[in-house]
Amino acid sequence: MRDGELKRTLSAIRLPSEEACARARNRLDSLTKPAGSLGRLEDLAACYVGMTGNVSPPPLDPVVFTLAADHGVTAEGVSAYPQSVTAQMVKNFIRDGAAVNVLARHAAASLCVVDVGVAEDLGAHVGLLHHKIAHGTKNFLYEPAMSHEQAITSLHVGMNLAQAACADGKNLLAVGEMGIGNTTASAAIASVLTGYDVERVTGRGTGVDGQRLRRKISVIQRALALHRPSPDDVVDTLAKVGGFEIGGMAGLMLGAASRRVPVVLDGFISGVSAFIAVALAPRCREYLLASHLSEESGHRIVLDHLKLEPLLDLRMRLGEGTGACLAITLVQAALNLYGQMATFEEAAIAGALQKS
Amino acid sequence: MRDGELKRTLSAIRLPSEEACARARNRLDSLTKPAGSLGRLEDLAACYVGMTGNVSPPPLDPVVFTLAADHGVTAEGVSAYPQSVTAQMVKNFIRDGAAVNVLARHAAASLCVVDVGVAEDLGAHVGLLHHKIAHGTKNFLYEPAMSHEQAITSLHVGMNLAQAACADGKNLLAVGEMGIGNTTASAAIASVLTGYDVERVTGRGTGVDGQRLRRKISVIQRALALHRPSPDDVVDTLAKVGGFEIGGMAGLMLGAASRRVPVVLDGFISGVSAFIAVALAPRCREYLLASHLSEESGHRIVLDHLKLEPLLDLRMRLGEGTGACLAITLVQAALNLYGQMATFEEAAIAGALQKS
Repeated sequence: MRDGELKRTLSAIRLPSEEACARARNRLDSLTKPAGSLGRLEDLAACYVGMTGNVSPPPLDPVVFTLAADHGVTAEGVSAYPQSVTAQMVKNFIRDGAAVNVLARHAAASLCVVDVGVAEDLGAHVGLLHHKIAHGTKNFLYEPAMSHEQAITSLHVGMNLAQAACADGKNLLAVGEMGIGNTTASAAIASVLTGYDVERVTGRGTGVDGQRLRRKISVIQRALALHRPSPDDVVDTLAKVGGFEIGGMAGLMLGAASRRVPVVLDGFISGVSAFIAVALAPRCREYLLASHLSEESGHRIVLDHLKLEPLLDLRMRLGEGTGACLAITLVQAALNLYGQMATFEEAAIAGALQKS
Repeated sequence: MRDGELKRTLSAIRLPSEEACARARNRLDSLTKPAGSLGRLEDLAACYVGMTGNVSPPPLDPVVFTLAADHGVTAEGVSAYPQSVTAQMVKNFIRDGAAVNVLARHAAASLCVVDVGVAEDLGAHVGLLHHKIAHGTKNFLYEPAMSHEQAITSLHVGMNLAQAACADGKNLLAVGEMGIGNTTASAAIASVLTGYDVERVTGRGTGVDGQRLRRKISVIQRALALHRPSPDDVVDTLAKVGGFEIGGMAGLMLGAASRRVPVVLDGFISGVSAFIAVALAPRCREYLLASHLSEESGHRIVLDHLKLEPLLDLRMRLGEGTGACLAITLVQAALNLYGQMATFEEAAIAGALQKS
């Protein structure tokens, strides 16, 4: 039954409107500037219009989803920080103290924090959505991180959240995460899906030292040797070595794309989620915007595989959705230019700056 | 007499406060994130605090100065557009129709449009400052663009505007320009001051084709052969092959730096202005932030000489201050993070995320 809902969403994803995109390009060329001189801001505006299919888009109303979950593999000492920090940081989000709180406000975006699998029971809080699938994943060094059913559930949780947000009028989604150990899970998935060696896609996460980095790589290698996830079955890969927030973000992307709403990616982990989403529905890629290039070494590889070019490179490596928030401000700038600049005709510049 | 005022400003420029910068770094390390994980946003916040010397900076109150002037050298067909477009675009600024109007508003910055040498008399307008030095420069293929006195005046105009803005509480300045032909003047100055061949620092400006680009290069080469400006005398170089907006922006930088107020650069032309400002007062460099890397080919060379790393690379090539506006939003984001995030102590995360 639930698989049916997923399949319906996947098959509902249409390609962006080439006609709307072309009309947006025409309008951009009529504005008082040399054609193309606003560079990637013009691409952003045209893509946004093509994705939504609306050449006169309403005011931007963005929402940032920050999905939190824990990872059993932290028991192997793959992170510089204890698992308890996931819950502590979720409480920090709820109390408005974290970087993503500040940057979502800066971007005039709503922030939606979701517990999809934190080990601790967090209790009821205004500003925290409860969709806990389990109290953290299992330690994938010894057993699959989650069941097939849980992997499908994580996709559904994200899909339903996105579709509800779109129904509420949100017209730009951004994804972020919090989960101690989730660069380990992401590197494992990235290695399976890109075919790169584990060393190439495994980075320092929140900042592990050389010895711990070697342990992290070894843990992933042993887990992949044990589970042998197939690159042709991304749900199986997600179940064996993934995480609930990774599946949840993939679901958010699929849900938004099915409603023609663009999705802003964050760093490495959301890039891995994008890989899963695009494997399930290749057209989903056309709704993704890569916000920034993170310092995490596998991020460039994942974005290259997705053929996505990041907008920013500010040497960030925090996650939470922080890079995505900065990119939202660029989308806003692009749409403001598209909607508010004078045309040559209006300014009576007689086409002087138009393409020669 | 006027030279005395310039000299006083140059000698008033102090180095940023290392102590304030170090205190800002300490605060940044106490915030709830892995140390350094916000990358260049942390550098921006620390630099801003060091420049202003205030570890608790008041709310950002930015102003964008867009300086407009004409260039006699346009008579040689070096631009894709006629000289009259400078005045037409100034009128577009006044009527709120240009890209810089939209992006200054996006950045919550005031916009200050200044006529420092437009050929046409523009008349009185709310929102246009009149500091016309002449009705455009002379054609530097045959005679110096301006007199030594006019070059000094252009520096003073900018200096006084900056100091007045700082006295009014503006705590971040951004510079931009409008002037058909000004990439030709800028390439000439860049070649003299960096020592690079004219070909290397001359680009397509608003979009000249190959034949016109070759003419542009030839005009600059012949002008430099005629005037032989000395790289050791930047005022002489400015006078012989420069422009009023180029001198004016250099003056803005010097004036702001003398008041410890950071200045956000825009593209290639403001980069050349920065070269002049830093040649006159090397400490001025410490107050400059490079907003973006423009498509204009000489920009990277100029920024490398200044040892400034651009924040953005969005393939923009419009000028006006548009790239600078986007960077203002990053400064705002950085200062918001610095001022609004919870510390580990406040969030009771027990230092778990601190540098190990």
